[in-house]
Amino acid sequence: VPRVVVDVMLKPEILDPQGQAVQRALERLGFDRVTSVRQGKRFEIEIAAPAGIGPGAADAAAELGRDMAARLLANNVIEDFTVRIEDDAGGAG
Amino acid sequence: VPRVVVDVMLKPEILDPQGQAVQRALERLGFDRVTSVRQGKRFEIEIAAPAGIGPGAADAAAELGRDMAARLLANNVIEDFTVRIEDDAGGAG
Repeated sequence: VPRVVVDVMLKPEILDPQGQAVQRALERLGFDRVTSVRQGKRFEIEIAAPAGIGPGAADAAAELGRDMAARLLANNVIEDFTVRIEDDAGGAG
Repeated sequence: VPRVVVDVMLKPEILDPQGQAVQRALERLGFDRVTSVRQGKRFEIEIAAPAGIGPGAADAAAELGRDMAARLLANNVIEDFTVRIEDDAGGAG
């Protein structure tokens, strides 16, 4: 079963106050070499593979992941997303 | 300059209502092959490399990333984290 991982981050030109708050908290803890923190979202999505599909399953899952990201997971006005496929331990997909 | 990426996800045994809500929203949009969605956080952290350090910089940055994750970014009672290093475009770090 392929697992689709979608990472959603604010576009670089969009201010990220949440990341800035984390950066300041890290500084207070003594992590003074941190120059920038951006915080985003990570989605791990399991897809039921249709029976009988082998090597093409990963490509199909990636296509599905991009479709889900564009339609729901990311706001394309202010966010970028990346999609990749990770095989599960079983890896029968 | 090395970039540290920290992914924080709820442990598998912890209920993820946010992920479940996303899964139901995907179903309503017609993505009916999705069997599970888990939502977590992704942090992209830029570290100022100390001058004169070459190949060891990535290891040092990864160590720093694990320290930051354990002390602030993740709640180790309910969350797992993974740390990895991505080189920036410039890659002078």
